[in-house]
Amino acid sequence: MSLEMLGYLGGFLVTISLAPQVIKSYKTKSTKDISIVYTIILLIGLGLWVMYAILNGIIPLSIFASIEFLFTLSLLILKMIYK
Amino acid sequence: MSLEMLGYLGGFLVTISLAPQVIKSYKTKSTKDISIVYTIILLIGLGLWVMYAILNGIIPLSIFASIEFLFTLSLLILKMIYK
Repeated sequence: MSLEMLGYLGGFLVTISLAPQVIKSYKTKSTKDISIVYTIILLIGLGLWVMYAILNGIIPLSIFASIEFLFTLSLLILKMIYK
Repeated sequence: MSLEMLGYLGGFLVTISLAPQVIKSYKTKSTKDISIVYTIILLIGLGLWVMYAILNGIIPLSIFASIEFLFTLSLLILKMIYK
C-alpha cells in the first residue's frame, strides 16, 4: 500500500467512524452516556477544518471534514432531542 | 487569524474533543450509549493516520493523531470495562 493510500484510508475510516454512533443513538433513542461537550468541541473543530480546507483548496480534506461535520451535527441534534 | 492558525486550531479542538467524553465515561462508569463499532473504526483510522504522519514526517499531524488515538483507546477500554 502506498503512503498516500494509507493517509486516505485513515481519513476515510475516521470520517465514517461516527456513522455507527449516529445510527445507534437514532435507534436506541438514548444518548445520556454521550458527552455534549465532546460533540460541541468536535463540531467547532471540524467547522474550522472545513473552512481551512476549502480556503486552501484541499479537496480530500474538504470532503472528509464536511461529512464528519454532518455526522457530528446529527449526533448533537440526537443528543439534544433524546436527553 | 492566518489560514495556518485556522488549521491548527481546528486540529487542536478535534484532538481534545474526546477528553470530556473519556472523563464523563470514567466518572459515570456507564458507556452503554456509546457504539463500540464507532470506537474501533476510529481507533483503526487514527492508527493509520499516525503511521502516515510519522512516515511522511508531518510533525503536527503525528502529535494530534497520537493524542486522539490515546483518547480513543481509553474510551474503548472504558467501553469494554463498563458494558
